[in-house]
Amino acid sequence: MGDLKRLAFEKKSFDGFLVMNEANMLYLAGFPGAISLLIPKDGETILYVYSVNYEQAKAEGKEFTVELLKRKENLMQTIARKVAELGIRKLAIDSLSFENYRMLSKGLRKKARMYARSRLIWELRKLKNADELELMKKAGELASTGMEAAFQTIALGIREYEIAAEVEYAMRRNGSWGTAFETIVASGSRSAFPHGGCTDRKIQRGDLIVVDLGATYKYYRSDLTRTIVAGEPTERQKRIYEIVRLAHEKSCEAAKPRSVAREVDAAARQAIEKSGYGKYFVHGLGHGVGLEVHEPPTLGQESRDKLRAGNVVTIEPGIYIPGFGGIRIEDTLLVQEPSPAKFTKAAYTLKAKR
Amino acid sequence: MGDLKRLAFEKKSFDGFLVMNEANMLYLAGFPGAISLLIPKDGETILYVYSVNYEQAKAEGKEFTVELLKRKENLMQTIARKVAELGIRKLAIDSLSFENYRMLSKGLRKKARMYARSRLIWELRKLKNADELELMKKAGELASTGMEAAFQTIALGIREYEIAAEVEYAMRRNGSWGTAFETIVASGSRSAFPHGGCTDRKIQRGDLIVVDLGATYKYYRSDLTRTIVAGEPTERQKRIYEIVRLAHEKSCEAAKPRSVAREVDAAARQAIEKSGYGKYFVHGLGHGVGLEVHEPPTLGQESRDKLRAGNVVTIEPGIYIPGFGGIRIEDTLLVQEPSPAKFTKAAYTLKAKR
Repeated sequence: MGDLKRLAFEKKSFDGFLVMNEANMLYLAGFPGAISLLIPKDGETILYVYSVNYEQAKAEGKEFTVELLKRKENLMQTIARKVAELGIRKLAIDSLSFENYRMLSKGLRKKARMYARSRLIWELRKLKNADELELMKKAGELASTGMEAAFQTIALGIREYEIAAEVEYAMRRNGSWGTAFETIVASGSRSAFPHGGCTDRKIQRGDLIVVDLGATYKYYRSDLTRTIVAGEPTERQKRIYEIVRLAHEKSCEAAKPRSVAREVDAAARQAIEKSGYGKYFVHGLGHGVGLEVHEPPTLGQESRDKLRAGNVVTIEPGIYIPGFGGIRIEDTLLVQEPSPAKFTKAAYTLKAKR
Repeated sequence: MGDLKRLAFEKKSFDGFLVMNEANMLYLAGFPGAISLLIPKDGETILYVYSVNYEQAKAEGKEFTVELLKRKENLMQTIARKVAELGIRKLAIDSLSFENYRMLSKGLRKKARMYARSRLIWELRKLKNADELELMKKAGELASTGMEAAFQTIALGIREYEIAAEVEYAMRRNGSWGTAFETIVASGSRSAFPHGGCTDRKIQRGDLIVVDLGATYKYYRSDLTRTIVAGEPTERQKRIYEIVRLAHEKSCEAAKPRSVAREVDAAARQAIEKSGYGKYFVHGLGHGVGLEVHEPPTLGQESRDKLRAGNVVTIEPGIYIPGFGGIRIEDTLLVQEPSPAKFTKAAYTLKAKR
């Protein structure tokens, strides 16, 4: 909270910050059930909450004025009144629906101006501190446990969702708070869809199986992908796997503090293009991970981000050939000197263990 | 899609609908990876997609013009151009961030007006058709399987997240696509927090354990809560359980087509108030369920909704006493004549099976 105040109120000249985004509230207040945070330049932050979460907010949301929103009360009108009462003139806002924007705008009666400044919170959230890194490391270990279960489980005849069941069970049993996102087990021609989900399809001989999974630990997430084959991989599968593997390695090496994100993407992209598969790498290289599974910084061809020590990002090149299938390799890693630390660990192999 | 066109273009006088909400896009297009849908009064709907989902959109998103958004392309500018090209003057919109609102507004140059009309899509989504009901029934069965696992697993010394592991594993193994929301296993004094999540706390003798779980089947969700005690329940626990049980029953009976939602809430609330625990029922009675776990209609004291046949809602009264703990009983049910059909089934008992 202190960091945001320095950034928004001292460095920039705002005198209030309205936080409406769930993950931002969790980040700033450490409490998952708030409806809104109003942070004035001077004085205590107000945490708005409905009665359903009131007791929990009082128990967990220290350092705040917890305000109970009554039924029938309109949040935007309440906030407009409070902004006026606190004398806020320049209100930074992280996110707002356009209906709420219109309502708040009306309530403020031109006495305060609104500025979209989610990026100020992202500047903080992008740089993980030591406490956050501990949790993310644990989330990475849990994902690794899940992937080990996938390698152990994959066999001919088993259904995609049954593999997901074993993966998620292994993570949960070891302390995961839940999946970081919907587990992907996409097999056969479905593996060519980067976001293939999982279905009741049974694994067949020669299938490529993209397993993309993540765990959550105390709200922090991880993201890990391996591509596995049931039975003996073909020569073509092995060849394409090695291209993706090399691309992955090149980008991992390039992911250093002060690297230009676009160039980290390019390291993998060039390796894939050189092999003639450029047009099948249909997505960006990776993304930040933290309280959300997709966060800044972005590692892609259009990114304007620069990496910094303390960023946690994914590196996940892939080649997706309609009909043939897809191969993706992904790790979650901490950007640091002299080389990144991988939070996720799993063998770089196409071969299942059964 | 036809239904929305009739509602928005024939009954109301809009000539275009911009859909940005993920669940709405899934509902209307049947495809989970779109960035936006632009539905003109005349002509084909345009489904905007990034390259990562392009192949899947072409395979799954029938009846649409699939437009690939290029990198660097600004979605709001693209949409503004298309709105002008199609001659749309009155554009209904389901949801939009205020940054996008400002950008689109600028792009439209006052040639088209924007109207927030998510409620038109909700009018459709609130009424489930036969296909949807099949999926929701299955999602309910999967949740029931999960609750059976909770009754089987709960014992002294087991951790909250280990119970969640068994619950989720049972649902997944039987075909669940994933949890409908973050499973709650809140024990001891934590059971008094209606949204308590789950932790590594070990179950102790005499704990109340609120287990709130849901499954997803082909994107449709279910929601089920029971409160369970490890060992022999105390007289006070049993007494309060019976009050909640009666309140639950009263509201289930009241949930009929044409019932006023506020009165369905009141049926449970009065039963609880009569017993002197009114101030401990700190939330609304229930909510709609479908593609999202919290949808219209709302069953609460301030609701203006009226129930209709085809609504699928939760009924979930609870009593939460700080220090003592909480008891909640919840089912997901279909509103229909002559009486609601429960999609979730689990014993109404405090007693675990071990």
